[in-house]
Amino acid sequence: MDKKKNISMAVIKRLPKYHRYLAELMRNDVDRISSKELSEKIGFTASQIRQDLNCFGDFGQQGYGYNVGELYNQISGILGLTKEYKTVIVGAGNIGQAIANYSQFEKLGFTLDGIFDINPKLMGLKIRDIEIQDIDYLGDYLKENPTDIGIICVPNNNAQKICETFVKNGVKGIWNFAPIDLVVPETVKVENVHLSDSLLTLSCLLNDIE
Amino acid sequence: MDKKKNISMAVIKRLPKYHRYLAELMRNDVDRISSKELSEKIGFTASQIRQDLNCFGDFGQQGYGYNVGELYNQISGILGLTKEYKTVIVGAGNIGQAIANYSQFEKLGFTLDGIFDINPKLMGLKIRDIEIQDIDYLGDYLKENPTDIGIICVPNNNAQKICETFVKNGVKGIWNFAPIDLVVPETVKVENVHLSDSLLTLSCLLNDIE
Repeated sequence: MDKKKNISMAVIKRLPKYHRYLAELMRNDVDRISSKELSEKIGFTASQIRQDLNCFGDFGQQGYGYNVGELYNQISGILGLTKEYKTVIVGAGNIGQAIANYSQFEKLGFTLDGIFDINPKLMGLKIRDIEIQDIDYLGDYLKENPTDIGIICVPNNNAQKICETFVKNGVKGIWNFAPIDLVVPETVKVENVHLSDSLLTLSCLLNDIE
Repeated sequence: MDKKKNISMAVIKRLPKYHRYLAELMRNDVDRISSKELSEKIGFTASQIRQDLNCFGDFGQQGYGYNVGELYNQISGILGLTKEYKTVIVGAGNIGQAIANYSQFEKLGFTLDGIFDINPKLMGLKIRDIEIQDIDYLGDYLKENPTDIGIICVPNNNAQKICETFVKNGVKGIWNFAPIDLVVPETVKVENVHLSDSLLTLSCLLNDIE
């Protein structure tokens, strides 16, 4: 695990995909796979795969391939999936509700412990047995309930303020769905899902091929 | 615009962010901006910005900066935002409903023209005045209503099949929210929003800093 700190952001971004494919191989009772076979499935070149997987240990054996289960466990560890994460959603609109209803995240170790919104009409309503609370209580809640990941599903103008409440109360990870780039201290990690950016990337690609 | 075909995927992925920031500058009545000032706002280095923007024309003038409006229009063009796109959502579950309810996409030129689902209980229900239709009619619908972008919001096991219905009926862009990698011909472009991958990237980053 000592090698982990040297893993580049590009490799980190590919790891969840390896994790997905290895999980599928395990479901199909595949014990071993060569970088060439994995390459055909996952769409990276075999040399890219060997290089990526070399970042965190010597897993492949010449002419023998990778042990699927071992590799899966190792990647799970690097992805931090051997731990549990307490999460809180702020913003119970469309996207907040969609995220709250994703029960798959819980299976990966991410529990949803609180949902907050600014709209008084939503107070007391429940999503998956979790009562929506007034956003004014977010700070107090976080003080009493240490939280690992804050999920921001509010419009632009409130996102930075909510982010600051998270940071001030010890939240180290922000999963941001607001279409802005948050300002955080270096010790806090932000992962963005910018839906409009993604759609515009698609229209750019479409335009390119015409 | 001739230079467009040489723009790398890395630059394409950054263009929507430029577009967002330039739109904000225009809202704030900023007419000109230097690469240095833009760098402070957007978080790319000034040299990265000059290099990116050079890809599609000579916009900056030494000691004068970029004309914000011109650059915005040029990037809008490259992103394909001078056109309109007809879109269809398949899967009216949580994420499908959330996407359907994003009225901002319409302002960018993406109109939602159809919603399909497999669940008979949803048939006839409306989201933003669009009636949810039976997925069995998707092929017929696409034949009668040429569609630019197919949005896939179904679970894994149906995603590839739906993708094939889209491709067979002339859809050139797929916006995929299913946690799999779709197989498409080279003439079809796919942009993925893999929410679990994004969350796992965050937990990886969190694990790294501990």
